Amino acid sequence: MMKKEDSDSGTSAELSGITVIDYDEKYFDERDIERIEDLATYRLTPTVTWINFRGLPDSDNLAKIGEIFGIHPLTIEDILNTGQRPKLEDMVDYIYAAVKTFHFHEKSHRMMTAQVSLVITRQAVLSFEEEGGVVFEPIREKLRKYRGRIRRMGTDYLTYRLLDAVVDSYFDMVEKIGDNLELLEDRVVGNPTPDVLKAIHLLRMETTTILRSVWPLREVVSALTHDEFPMVKRDSVTYFRDIYDHTVQIIETMETNRDIISSLLDIYLSSTSNRMNEIMKVLTVIATIFMPMTFLAGVYGMNFKYFPELEWRWAYISFWIAVIIIAVLMIFYFRRKKWL
Amino acid sequence: MMKKEDSDSGTSAELSGITVIDYDEKYFDERDIERIEDLATYRLTPTVTWINFRGLPDSDNLAKIGEIFGIHPLTIEDILNTGQRPKLEDMVDYIYAAVKTFHFHEKSHRMMTAQVSLVITRQAVLSFEEEGGVVFEPIREKLRKYRGRIRRMGTDYLTYRLLDAVVDSYFDMVEKIGDNLELLEDRVVGNPTPDVLKAIHLLRMETTTILRSVWPLREVVSALTHDEFPMVKRDSVTYFRDIYDHTVQIIETMETNRDIISSLLDIYLSSTSNRMNEIMKVLTVIATIFMPMTFLAGVYGMNFKYFPELEWRWAYISFWIAVIIIAVLMIFYFRRKKWL
Amino acid sequence: MMKKEDSDSGTSAELSGITVIDYDEKYFDERDIERIEDLATYRLTPTVTWINFRGLPDSDNLAKIGEIFGIHPLTIEDILNTGQRPKLEDMVDYIYAAVKTFHFHEKSHRMMTAQVSLVITRQAVLSFEEEGGVVFEPIREKLRKYRGRIRRMGTDYLTYRLLDAVVDSYFDMVEKIGDNLELLEDRVVGNPTPDVLKAIHLLRMETTTILRSVWPLREVVSALTHDEFPMVKRDSVTYFRDIYDHTVQIIETMETNRDIISSLLDIYLSSTSNRMNEIMKVLTVIATIFMPMTFLAGVYGMNFKYFPELEWRWAYISFWIAVIIIAVLMIFYFRRKKWL
Amino acid sequence: MMKKEDSDSGTSAELSGITVIDYDEKYFDERDIERIEDLATYRLTPTVTWINFRGLPDSDNLAKIGEIFGIHPLTIEDILNTGQRPKLEDMVDYIYAAVKTFHFHEKSHRMMTAQVSLVITRQAVLSFEEEGGVVFEPIREKLRKYRGRIRRMGTDYLTYRLLDAVVDSYFDMVEKIGDNLELLEDRVVGNPTPDVLKAIHLLRMETTTILRSVWPLREVVSALTHDEFPMVKRDSVTYFRDIYDHTVQIIETMETNRDIISSLLDIYLSSTSNRMNEIMKVLTVIATIFMPMTFLAGVYGMNFKYFPELEWRWAYISFWIAVIIIAVLMIFYFRRKKWL
Amino acid sequence: MMKKEDSDSGTSAELSGITVIDYDEKYFDERDIERIEDLATYRLTPTVTWINFRGLPDSDNLAKIGEIFGIHPLTIEDILNTGQRPKLEDMVDYIYAAVKTFHFHEKSHRMMTAQVSLVITRQAVLSFEEEGGVVFEPIREKLRKYRGRIRRMGTDYLTYRLLDAVVDSYFDMVEKIGDNLELLEDRVVGNPTPDVLKAIHLLRMETTTILRSVWPLREVVSALTHDEFPMVKRDSVTYFRDIYDHTVQIIETMETNRDIISSLLDIYLSSTSNRMNEIMKVLTVIATIFMPMTFLAGVYGMNFKYFPELEWRWAYISFWIAVIIIAVLMIFYFRRKKWL
Repeated sequence: MMKKEDSDSGTSAELSGITVIDYDEKYFDERDIERIEDLATYRLTPTVTWINFRGLPDSDNLAKIGEIFGIHPLTIEDILNTGQRPKLEDMVDYIYAAVKTFHFHEKSHRMMTAQVSLVITRQAVLSFEEEGGVVFEPIREKLRKYRGRIRRMGTDYLTYRLLDAVVDSYFDMVEKIGDNLELLEDRVVGNPTPDVLKAIHLLRMETTTILRSVWPLREVVSALTHDEFPMVKRDSVTYFRDIYDHTVQIIETMETNRDIISSLLDIYLSSTSNRMNEIMKVLTVIATIFMPMTFLAGVYGMNFKYFPELEWRWAYISFWIAVIIIAVLMIFYFRRKKWL
Repeated sequence: MMKKEDSDSGTSAELSGITVIDYDEKYFDERDIERIEDLATYRLTPTVTWINFRGLPDSDNLAKIGEIFGIHPLTIEDILNTGQRPKLEDMVDYIYAAVKTFHFHEKSHRMMTAQVSLVITRQAVLSFEEEGGVVFEPIREKLRKYRGRIRRMGTDYLTYRLLDAVVDSYFDMVEKIGDNLELLEDRVVGNPTPDVLKAIHLLRMETTTILRSVWPLREVVSALTHDEFPMVKRDSVTYFRDIYDHTVQIIETMETNRDIISSLLDIYLSSTSNRMNEIMKVLTVIATIFMPMTFLAGVYGMNFKYFPELEWRWAYISFWIAVIIIAVLMIFYFRRKKWL
Repeated sequence: MMKKEDSDSGTSAELSGITVIDYDEKYFDERDIERIEDLATYRLTPTVTWINFRGLPDSDNLAKIGEIFGIHPLTIEDILNTGQRPKLEDMVDYIYAAVKTFHFHEKSHRMMTAQVSLVITRQAVLSFEEEGGVVFEPIREKLRKYRGRIRRMGTDYLTYRLLDAVVDSYFDMVEKIGDNLELLEDRVVGNPTPDVLKAIHLLRMETTTILRSVWPLREVVSALTHDEFPMVKRDSVTYFRDIYDHTVQIIETMETNRDIISSLLDIYLSSTSNRMNEIMKVLTVIATIFMPMTFLAGVYGMNFKYFPELEWRWAYISFWIAVIIIAVLMIFYFRRKKWL
Repeated sequence: MMKKEDSDSGTSAELSGITVIDYDEKYFDERDIERIEDLATYRLTPTVTWINFRGLPDSDNLAKIGEIFGIHPLTIEDILNTGQRPKLEDMVDYIYAAVKTFHFHEKSHRMMTAQVSLVITRQAVLSFEEEGGVVFEPIREKLRKYRGRIRRMGTDYLTYRLLDAVVDSYFDMVEKIGDNLELLEDRVVGNPTPDVLKAIHLLRMETTTILRSVWPLREVVSALTHDEFPMVKRDSVTYFRDIYDHTVQIIETMETNRDIISSLLDIYLSSTSNRMNEIMKVLTVIATIFMPMTFLAGVYGMNFKYFPELEWRWAYISFWIAVIIIAVLMIFYFRRKKWL
Repeated sequence: MMKKEDSDSGTSAELSGITVIDYDEKYFDERDIERIEDLATYRLTPTVTWINFRGLPDSDNLAKIGEIFGIHPLTIEDILNTGQRPKLEDMVDYIYAAVKTFHFHEKSHRMMTAQVSLVITRQAVLSFEEEGGVVFEPIREKLRKYRGRIRRMGTDYLTYRLLDAVVDSYFDMVEKIGDNLELLEDRVVGNPTPDVLKAIHLLRMETTTILRSVWPLREVVSALTHDEFPMVKRDSVTYFRDIYDHTVQIIETMETNRDIISSLLDIYLSSTSNRMNEIMKVLTVIATIFMPMTFLAGVYGMNFKYFPELEWRWAYISFWIAVIIIAVLMIFYFRRKKWL
């Protein structure tokens, strides 16, 4: 459930670190920043500067950062409000993008979602991770080690890499959900306990959550492919189109999942009915066989004075024969009805 | 259920007070008005005038107000007809907007809805609250205490604050519904009584009601962001876009709620079936164990004269052994079927 | 169910009266016409002429009327074919509009639908009521008594009043359906008999019927607001927009009704399951308590010769104690399971 | 189920006759043609020529016909492929239209579908009926007898008459389905046997089949009303718009049918549950009344030596009184629960 | 389930052969190529060159091929990523198209899907089959034997033939699913075992899979009919439109299938309920007949000392008469209720 949180009070995660990577094809500098004021030196460098915030600064510090990089107060509110839906806003001097990342919380076995805000100018990318995660680590690694395309190109390509890392975190979830669905498919057919239903419910909710994040993300990426921003060069559009294809693929997979889930639910409900039928058959067979027999035993337990059969020599053995015939006929009848 | 009410007779709430706030950056005046005629003095002031009606004036008084501020008779009908769907009408000299507020009626534990009509001219905002509520109190407070943006800007910014207050009243409902849904989620899984079903029904209806109010509200706000009205300045568009984002967020949350509700219903229905299965198993197990035993007891209660077993020394103890074997076998059988 | 009826044979209602009202601001004349030929005199009057047909003329008479007022043969076919969906056709010299009215048939407790055809020229409105109803009576009344707007304005305003009367007849149905739904809501929760299901089915059909009439009606009215017809003056557009708002409101209410109906159906189905559970619990409780007890009674009814308990002094009283203990334990067990 | 059939082998119906009608306002000639080659004489006549094929020619003959009238090989393939969806293709020199007719197969009580292909040039219409049916007979009759509009106008009007005949065959189906639905509605409420379900399934399939034919047909007719073909004169557009209205009406009726069918299914399923409840009530009532009584009888059938009641003078009559009180109490209890 | 596969590691199928067919109207050469480098000779031939890869080359070899034919690195990634959704990309110098083929895996009785990538330049078509299948064999055969249209026309017509072969592979699946549906339809009505449900689930998944492949395929083909690529000549557009019609037909058939499947599921669920009713009726009939009789037998098994009936001469025969009357009345009662 998304909630609107007061943008001025209590952000969900405190700032736990600021990493600045400053690079071009020949130059590379990575350092951790402690004082917000130190960021000012990166404002006008001709190199590409990537400032990554793990956790969110409080509103005062964010205001300072905003002043340094010319970020509009409304954008600052958006960065702090972590309950937003993904969106992209053209603020003329910079692009503001809010997207969601997913990770799996091991303890609660639940899918967690966190917001990543990007402020993209011509010379710098500011990334705000609600949870100081590992999503962007491979990019840092690549920047350190290779002097390839990533070091040659500008903030638009860096943005592409960041968004690509975000979408990759979706594929992890997509795969996990896919695996769970397959497990569930077997259990629904083999051993449909009530737990299965809760698992179906959970998967349905997770699928919906991902879809609700990817639908607006697709629009965000689509806007970047339309080549209207000064900081997105024509060459980079191809790369954003690649991410666009990925988001479409995630959406299709999730929609297929919804079909599968709804089909599994039908099977589950139906198998509950089938088991009920099985139970009722057992009861009916037992009752139908023993009720006439018990009645007959009751008859010969009566105490009438004039009761010819009681005296009869072969009465008892005849009783058993009659009872067995009744049982056999009943069993035969149920066989023909395919209940046994 | 919305109903078309006679616009000439019986409005749902009588007028209980008129508050006029007249302000610009330096000047602030707040007073309660008793006679409609006194409003005429505010007609042409260069300051921003906000006239708030708690409850609706009767049609005669409203006609007088209309005459003073140049409001079209059709708009007057719209103000009185509180069963409308939210809409915005461009009346050239003013904008007419009708929106809904929500509040929770403590006694009946039901969500109530009330209409707020806004008439926005270049120098004045007339707000008509069907229920003289507390929705706009924080704005009055802010106008009194601060000389900030709200005092510097015109009727468009005041309109933004009013609509923002309305949308905030939605978030309260959204949160309440979200909390109820979570409670329900636990109860559906843990203790699915028939009450749960009624609660689901109620939440479904509330979700639908909110959606039916927010969908047209989104269009109302969207129209205000398209910068076509003389009284909405270009700078204010950003603020209306902020509200627009909020309405989209409410819509998404409500649509997610609908998914959750429909999933809960499936779980509820299925758990009803599961309990039925449990009940039937108990009955079947009992019947299947005792029916053969009762039959056997019946057999040895028969009064046949020639009945060899009856004379037998160990007959009684053998009977109990047989009966216990039958019971154990049956229990063993049900264990294997996982019914016990 | 709509059916295509032969346009040449058997209209559903015979012509039972023609009323002509001829008026302008100063002049008013109302009379009943017996001979079709007499209508010719109203053809070229500068006053506004409203000719109302209660019931439909047969095709010959309609052809005559068509000749007098220049109505195209296809329009004549449309007037006679009462199974049409609402539509508006621009025939250059006149506008043809077909709409539906609703009324409640007291005897069968069913909603009935009837067609009203309007032929609107610059100086005359011909209205054909399939059922000579009371829908237009208030308008006649107003024309007779007031010299207000309705007498000053032309055929477009008269058309507005006629369509408004038609839409008002919808609101009656909307309200009736709303009341029935509320009644049903109580019954579904309180006393869900199979009758409820039939009532739900009926309401669903009625809701669908109204929607299928209002959807095209909305388009009809929308066309009139687009100000493209020579006989619809710019000033009148506002009035048609008012009707347009009403149709949208009816559609929304009906769609909300559909949601409610589908929710009620879920509750109904679920409460059927719940009652089944109740029934099964009673059966299971009874069987589970009495089966062991009956078995025990059967045991001591056996006729074994060597049967130690039978001789025992306190056997009988012990039997009752045992039986009561069994019963109490069972009841205790079911209490814990919350079945009692 | 539609299948793609090999266009070169085995058409579904062999050619069984070719009828040529050649006419203008004053001239009329109708004859049966045996040799394909004879058709060549009709190629350039200034009169309107309608060549009707009952059954489909084999691909060789069709190639010959194509050569005579300048029909493109792809159109020839389309004529032979009877599994197509309705479509209209502008082939510059002629229009190709493929539509479906429906008829009711008496033996199997199933709705059958057949394809009609039309090739419309300025001077000739070639109609290919997959099944040599009676659909077009009334048009032949009219051409023979009347010298009215149909004889005065060109191939566009003839096309209108042919399509109108096709749509009329739909109305027959629509009516039949409507009648069946009404019958079903009564049976679902009165006597819901499993047969009802099969009937619902069949009606659902038929409704879908018709919809899937009418949706593309609507587009076909819509294209003809847009007045873009040289062989469709402006005057004829009105007539095609008439057919267009009919197709819309069929679609609406069918969609209403789908609503009704889905509502009937809900009633059916629910009434199955209701009957189950009835059955369970009978069982529970019987068991609950007789189980305690049987237990009591069992008690007094015990053979304890010390058994005070057995000696008692009024024991037997007291037993019956007790038993009757138990029964009455139980019945009273079920009455209050409204099970009896 | 689609998954994003690492494009650099492990393609799903290794390259098992490269066949080059080089032809124009008079010239034909077909040969198997072993060394990638040999492909360079075909780069600039004026003849049409079709290079077919059975299985996918590894990324190094593919890079070489890309260099020879000027294929963009992103296209190369796309060829290797076999989990894509069908798409068409205009790469200026060539068109890249990815489509899916279907075949039926005999062992697992499951539908399998494989990707085919096409790179279309003015003089060459490169086709990459994920599975070295038989889909394109008929085209090779035709190229070898005939000098008709296929040899006269360019790469656009060859592309048409390749896509047509792909779509034909869909029709095989469509037919198979259609046959299975018909079988299932009979079984659901005749013998609705739980297996039926699994079969329904499987068919539903297969239908969805095909739809998810054909929807984007339709867009791919649609793009080719819009005549915007330099390598697609105006004359060829008609042929692509033919394929477009086929894809629409497949989509319609699949959507009809979904309707049928959902209808079958309803029948299945309902027939489960019906069988439950049957079972419960048997149980209820048996219990209702024998419970009163057993009670009566119990009564006369009681040991009261004062028990007048026991002494009575005709007691025993009267007992049987009473018991038979009870049974007959019960049977009569159930007959009237139509349970027997």
